[in-house]
Amino acid sequence: MRILVINGPNLNILGTREVNIYGTLTLAQIILELQNCVSNVDLEFYQSNHEGEIVDAIQRAGRNQVDGILINPAAYTHTSLAIADAIAGVNIPTVEVHLSNIHAREEYRKHSFSAAKCIGQIAGFGINSYKLGLCALIEHIKDSKKK
Amino acid sequence: MRILVINGPNLNILGTREVNIYGTLTLAQIILELQNCVSNVDLEFYQSNHEGEIVDAIQRAGRNQVDGILINPAAYTHTSLAIADAIAGVNIPTVEVHLSNIHAREEYRKHSFSAAKCIGQIAGFGINSYKLGLCALIEHIKDSKKK
Amino acid sequence: MRILVINGPNLNILGTREVNIYGTLTLAQIILELQNCVSNVDLEFYQSNHEGEIVDAIQRAGRNQVDGILINPAAYTHTSLAIADAIAGVNIPTVEVHLSNIHAREEYRKHSFSAAKCIGQIAGFGINSYKLGLCALIEHIKDSKKK
Amino acid sequence: MRILVINGPNLNILGTREVNIYGTLTLAQIILELQNCVSNVDLEFYQSNHEGEIVDAIQRAGRNQVDGILINPAAYTHTSLAIADAIAGVNIPTVEVHLSNIHAREEYRKHSFSAAKCIGQIAGFGINSYKLGLCALIEHIKDSKKK
Amino acid sequence: MRILVINGPNLNILGTREVNIYGTLTLAQIILELQNCVSNVDLEFYQSNHEGEIVDAIQRAGRNQVDGILINPAAYTHTSLAIADAIAGVNIPTVEVHLSNIHAREEYRKHSFSAAKCIGQIAGFGINSYKLGLCALIEHIKDSKKK
Amino acid sequence: MRILVINGPNLNILGTREVNIYGTLTLAQIILELQNCVSNVDLEFYQSNHEGEIVDAIQRAGRNQVDGILINPAAYTHTSLAIADAIAGVNIPTVEVHLSNIHAREEYRKHSFSAAKCIGQIAGFGINSYKLGLCALIEHIKDSKKK
Amino acid sequence: MRILVINGPNLNILGTREVNIYGTLTLAQIILELQNCVSNVDLEFYQSNHEGEIVDAIQRAGRNQVDGILINPAAYTHTSLAIADAIAGVNIPTVEVHLSNIHAREEYRKHSFSAAKCIGQIAGFGINSYKLGLCALIEHIKDSKKK
Amino acid sequence: MRILVINGPNLNILGTREVNIYGTLTLAQIILELQNCVSNVDLEFYQSNHEGEIVDAIQRAGRNQVDGILINPAAYTHTSLAIADAIAGVNIPTVEVHLSNIHAREEYRKHSFSAAKCIGQIAGFGINSYKLGLCALIEHIKDSKKK
Amino acid sequence: MRILVINGPNLNILGTREVNIYGTLTLAQIILELQNCVSNVDLEFYQSNHEGEIVDAIQRAGRNQVDGILINPAAYTHTSLAIADAIAGVNIPTVEVHLSNIHAREEYRKHSFSAAKCIGQIAGFGINSYKLGLCALIEHIKDSKKK
Amino acid sequence: MRILVINGPNLNILGTREVNIYGTLTLAQIILELQNCVSNVDLEFYQSNHEGEIVDAIQRAGRNQVDGILINPAAYTHTSLAIADAIAGVNIPTVEVHLSNIHAREEYRKHSFSAAKCIGQIAGFGINSYKLGLCALIEHIKDSKKK
Amino acid sequence: MRILVINGPNLNILGTREVNIYGTLTLAQIILELQNCVSNVDLEFYQSNHEGEIVDAIQRAGRNQVDGILINPAAYTHTSLAIADAIAGVNIPTVEVHLSNIHAREEYRKHSFSAAKCIGQIAGFGINSYKLGLCALIEHIKDSKKK
Amino acid sequence: MRILVINGPNLNILGTREVNIYGTLTLAQIILELQNCVSNVDLEFYQSNHEGEIVDAIQRAGRNQVDGILINPAAYTHTSLAIADAIAGVNIPTVEVHLSNIHAREEYRKHSFSAAKCIGQIAGFGINSYKLGLCALIEHIKDSKKK
Repeated sequence: MRILVINGPNLNILGTREVNIYGTLTLAQIILELQNCVSNVDLEFYQSNHEGEIVDAIQRAGRNQVDGILINPAAYTHTSLAIADAIAGVNIPTVEVHLSNIHAREEYRKHSFSAAKCIGQIAGFGINSYKLGLCALIEHIKDSKKK
Repeated sequence: MRILVINGPNLNILGTREVNIYGTLTLAQIILELQNCVSNVDLEFYQSNHEGEIVDAIQRAGRNQVDGILINPAAYTHTSLAIADAIAGVNIPTVEVHLSNIHAREEYRKHSFSAAKCIGQIAGFGINSYKLGLCALIEHIKDSKKK
Repeated sequence: MRILVINGPNLNILGTREVNIYGTLTLAQIILELQNCVSNVDLEFYQSNHEGEIVDAIQRAGRNQVDGILINPAAYTHTSLAIADAIAGVNIPTVEVHLSNIHAREEYRKHSFSAAKCIGQIAGFGINSYKLGLCALIEHIKDSKKK
Repeated sequence: MRILVINGPNLNILGTREVNIYGTLTLAQIILELQNCVSNVDLEFYQSNHEGEIVDAIQRAGRNQVDGILINPAAYTHTSLAIADAIAGVNIPTVEVHLSNIHAREEYRKHSFSAAKCIGQIAGFGINSYKLGLCALIEHIKDSKKK
Repeated sequence: MRILVINGPNLNILGTREVNIYGTLTLAQIILELQNCVSNVDLEFYQSNHEGEIVDAIQRAGRNQVDGILINPAAYTHTSLAIADAIAGVNIPTVEVHLSNIHAREEYRKHSFSAAKCIGQIAGFGINSYKLGLCALIEHIKDSKKK
Repeated sequence: MRILVINGPNLNILGTREVNIYGTLTLAQIILELQNCVSNVDLEFYQSNHEGEIVDAIQRAGRNQVDGILINPAAYTHTSLAIADAIAGVNIPTVEVHLSNIHAREEYRKHSFSAAKCIGQIAGFGINSYKLGLCALIEHIKDSKKK
Repeated sequence: MRILVINGPNLNILGTREVNIYGTLTLAQIILELQNCVSNVDLEFYQSNHEGEIVDAIQRAGRNQVDGILINPAAYTHTSLAIADAIAGVNIPTVEVHLSNIHAREEYRKHSFSAAKCIGQIAGFGINSYKLGLCALIEHIKDSKKK
Repeated sequence: MRILVINGPNLNILGTREVNIYGTLTLAQIILELQNCVSNVDLEFYQSNHEGEIVDAIQRAGRNQVDGILINPAAYTHTSLAIADAIAGVNIPTVEVHLSNIHAREEYRKHSFSAAKCIGQIAGFGINSYKLGLCALIEHIKDSKKK
Repeated sequence: MRILVINGPNLNILGTREVNIYGTLTLAQIILELQNCVSNVDLEFYQSNHEGEIVDAIQRAGRNQVDGILINPAAYTHTSLAIADAIAGVNIPTVEVHLSNIHAREEYRKHSFSAAKCIGQIAGFGINSYKLGLCALIEHIKDSKKK
Repeated sequence: MRILVINGPNLNILGTREVNIYGTLTLAQIILELQNCVSNVDLEFYQSNHEGEIVDAIQRAGRNQVDGILINPAAYTHTSLAIADAIAGVNIPTVEVHLSNIHAREEYRKHSFSAAKCIGQIAGFGINSYKLGLCALIEHIKDSKKK
Repeated sequence: MRILVINGPNLNILGTREVNIYGTLTLAQIILELQNCVSNVDLEFYQSNHEGEIVDAIQRAGRNQVDGILINPAAYTHTSLAIADAIAGVNIPTVEVHLSNIHAREEYRKHSFSAAKCIGQIAGFGINSYKLGLCALIEHIKDSKKK
Repeated sequence: MRILVINGPNLNILGTREVNIYGTLTLAQIILELQNCVSNVDLEFYQSNHEGEIVDAIQRAGRNQVDGILINPAAYTHTSLAIADAIAGVNIPTVEVHLSNIHAREEYRKHSFSAAKCIGQIAGFGINSYKLGLCALIEHIKDSKKK
């Protein structure tokens, strides 16, 4: 099973970025932890600050028949219709995750263009949002394969 | 560790209710599955169609020093300020879960009064939303106790 | 044929309540008149000021295989998603009625959460709203049985 | 007793028009059924696709001392202030009816300019909306005459 | 000098229409009074309940080189873009008048599509709104001819 | 003189609930202080987390000819049309009070359904809001009796 | 008959102010022309750039039993509730006038707080707005005296 | 193949109407040019300033089994739900065209009720909008016949 | 203890102003009654129709070390950010009062810029709003001094 | 004559992307068909998922004196002000096209930032939207050169 | 060169006013610093808490042929159309400055009526906003004189 | 001291782009002028039409310990949450500048996502906006270093 983990803009500076909101955890640590918590699953990691590159990555996953996508679109969650369209377009099961509880922040962070095209959304659990999302995604893929 | 699992209105008729949205799973099955997936955790289950009873239950949990609350407020997610106030009032770590992906449904189901008072929200994974929420909650409680 | 007639909050004080809007008719009189105007139909009456109890009553009707529901959700028409979800959940043909013409009153009384889940809505004819709604419901049930 | 039944735009093509919403019933059948269900009441029927002609018809009813108006303003329900003004202007008891449940359709079909000037509104019962509306109207006229 | 006086929907039933708002004055009386108060000015009167006929009348005025238009678009003031487009299209100086003070009534009566295409608007003075509007229009035409 | 003091949801956990907003005062202390500051007035106290029970209590007051109601509807202030309808329905002079200054908090706490049906509203003075409200209510009742 | 003519902010710099909108006419010329066009009417003129002074002037008119007020509140038309309250408070017939056609300008110039408290509004005719307004006001006062 | 070309309000005065927006081209010239650019297609032309007549014309086309409709609803684009309902009702392939680029004009010209019921919309190319629309419509009809 | 009582625009004409809303009580009577109900408190009274003068008065109170401010900003409640800023700027405990129940009037009277900068707001009790506000303020000042 | 055809995000996966909306046609096929339908016109094709690259491409066209741009900005139609600014900045005639009828889809797909800066917009005709847009563009360029 | 520096409401209490937002700097210090940083420029200073006096001051500047205005309208930035009209009316180059970054504060502080009538706006740099604004203004005046 | 000057989309075509708004000045000239007006400050310039590249550049500045950022985000000002997040994330003092007065243009250009994360914003002074912004930034950095 192959899963692509996409991280959106400014997640590469996690650990130093607005520490009171996002904590001191770095993206490298997230990657390490995620790798440790799965076996028999091939995890690929991709980070970009570019909306277009994230669209490219999602499409590439479509062509390469990746089994699932775990995505934290960060700021693009709330402004990118192109990423939402890409997710809808490639037909790969996708789970949206957020480190912080976006439902308890600024008004404009409550709406997600992409979540509407995903299986579901997990927000507010720090690194655990990723782990839970990964579990949910793997479970979903297994279920689909059974059918 | 003691955790209270609260299910809001109409979740008691799961399995027959709008099956195309919520599936055929019953609340009894959810309870069973949740009990199977934890050990050393005392799970209590509560379901009510009454906003006020849910407020009561949350407060009772506060008095009984429950360690955490897992809540699916269902329709009250979007209309009940009283439940949100109760969660904020008892100061017990709480996780909000939803069977369906509320971000992909009617406009009025996207806003949550209660999520803003919880650690986080998990939506869209069917019964897995509960399991993931439970994991997230247990993890959170353990982390808090360490500090 | 069995039909449940549900009356929402403050309808139990009809006759003394805001007489210029709702008239001097009491709920008892409504019940009496409704019983007089049908035969071969078993009418059950339920009134509650509690949103949750109305949800309970609708679900009970679902379990008891009631043939139809005639409901005046009163103030909950405009604020209760839980009642609307219950109606959608039990799959019993339901008709919404209102004594006053809610389309000619305050702005916030024009929108109905529950009407969207009913066969239709009748508003503005005083006690006749109930009688007409009952006719419409019986007719609808007969038609459905034919199919 | 004389009652004018007004049908608004596109109701003349009922039976072929958006059959999944409005059914296969034709306007002629509605007229026939309505005539069959009353006695001692003189029913006049008028249909027009023209907003202005409907205003004219309402005014003519005012001059001819028609006892009541049963109106399905169709699309003009939601856009015509002129028809609403006409109803308010002639002071004839009027009932608004709709074949489909307008409260369960597009957002812009939920608001009615004219219902606010009528005794009440009945929506969602197909041809029965007309029959119920006619009953309600006759009842209302009789009641008024008593006073 | 030739001036066309256009009256919109329901103004032909003035005198019996919502007397508490519009008074007992009839359109015939308005016409008579207007004719009495000008000399050397040729007044033509037109009333219609049809949006399209009013558009026609405005265009006809354009072809016949009428010098000015005095218009009370009544309900169409607030809903007709076609009449506003017609006024903008024929390039005849136009004054909008209203019997009642539309700024002190329902929210939806405060906005005027047509006033934005007129020289100005006069509202609230009963029949005097017409007389004042006629004066303003004649004055405007004389001024324009001087230039 | 008999006055009913109604406390809405989560006010029973005052003293431990969001202490930075509501302070450490308990509901028992409020009750004690209120009792101490009146004489010749019979105070009854009622607290509920249930919207429907509060509606019931208001109606019961109506039947028992209570002279006045002092109410802190808490979260239901902003979401309950049923409580507002009940106040309007029983016709007992009612005063709305709030511990915190709701006008200086979240946007959604600024609007009150029930205040529009009360004599007035007092907000922001902690326990003094209750005392002032009680004075205002007693004064109002005395004044009414004089007339 | 005594009439007070009030001019709001920036009308004292008419003639040099945004000439493309307001023209080259000065306030002195407006005053002169108004004085020339009435006889047996005592006109008083007041101009102020201060919201409060205009409120004072309206109240003073109330105490001095002025028969009518002609007011161009200029920018305060759209922002001053205090002037609107003053007009409502003194109960002197008042007419609102505007030099430019405020219905054809910026969105925020279309709403008037004060017009809702006046007999009516005249806008768009340059100095003639004042003359017409004065006529309308005098007519109104005469009519009232007859009654 | 028979195609009906419908022109809405004020398009009959093209050539003299707001020349800076719509140009000097007349409707007669548009008709001539359209006739020249097709062969084997029977073009019928209809223009009306009346909303109702356009609804009539669309319905007539439905009865006469016209193959397609090319419509420029002009001002009714933005205000007529009746025309949109008519298009949806007759089930004839329809293309909406506009001379000017409505997306670059006033805010209220950007929304189209009718376009949502058409195959598509073409706007901004002057007379070419009609030619392109006609091509698109013919192509669409041919494609449909193949299936 | 020194307290400044500020009355905003049009409160100087109380007694004659919109008597159905504000009653026949005059400002002089309010002043007299307030003076009678306190001892050992130095009350200063200030009334102005000028937004700027009220800002000045609040600042003056700041410089003169007044202990508290009781303010009825009247119409400026809803439009003046400058008065709200002044209250926030001088750091004197302030209580906002209203004679009428502003929560039961026009939509635009429900929002208060200044209340958000005060201890609290009291509305709807006529002259008693002032008395209650004065009590609340004195109580607050005493409490603060204890700390 | 040289024309640049720009395709926005996710159009490179046409043919497999949301086939029920966009059909099975691929971008390669669109390119082929467009090349076949023109002669004497040099067509260049550019596709990118990156907002910035599309801005770059438009500017490059400006420097290379391309005669016209045919653009389908896809998701960026609704979110990119930068592309709209680029079109406005290079002053090359541009036509916006869409495969699907964006006016009949989600609310957020109805508004276009870029169409306001183009000659016009064509939407809803599948590949024909491109062909028609190309014709319209060529025609426009020829017309401009004549002048 | 003569420049008028206008300071709006509550800026006279700078230094003690909401120190966490505005700092401890006084208006006297701002004046001193501004005087030190220019030569050959005649600076006049004006402060008022009155909207009307600021309008007066701007007009006086117009009559006295002041070369430029530097204005911090403080709270009136967001509520005064009269000041904006005055700036537009006198035709003196004007620069708007703010001590705090109004774009990072309450929603209602983001909109400026007056900035739209100025050359530009500078916000967020404390006293430096004034210095920068003064430079910008002097530069602008010099540039204009060259032309 | 090292400062990075970032220019957003379409600023590389300054001088030819919408000259009536932005003038004939080129970006090269802006760079030259900025370099001439500082000494002892190391200015780096970066321009990109890509939202993602601007995010990258801001982050790079964070890693390279640049002392300050001067940014004109152009169209991304109003649509990019990612750039705003990047500024908030790197914690480098940043000043936002605009050539044109964005507060006097289209409604959608008045709101800035990024300004809320900057020290302040300067808009409307052409190239001087940059110079003033640079001064303000240098001043700010010097002040910070002192502390």
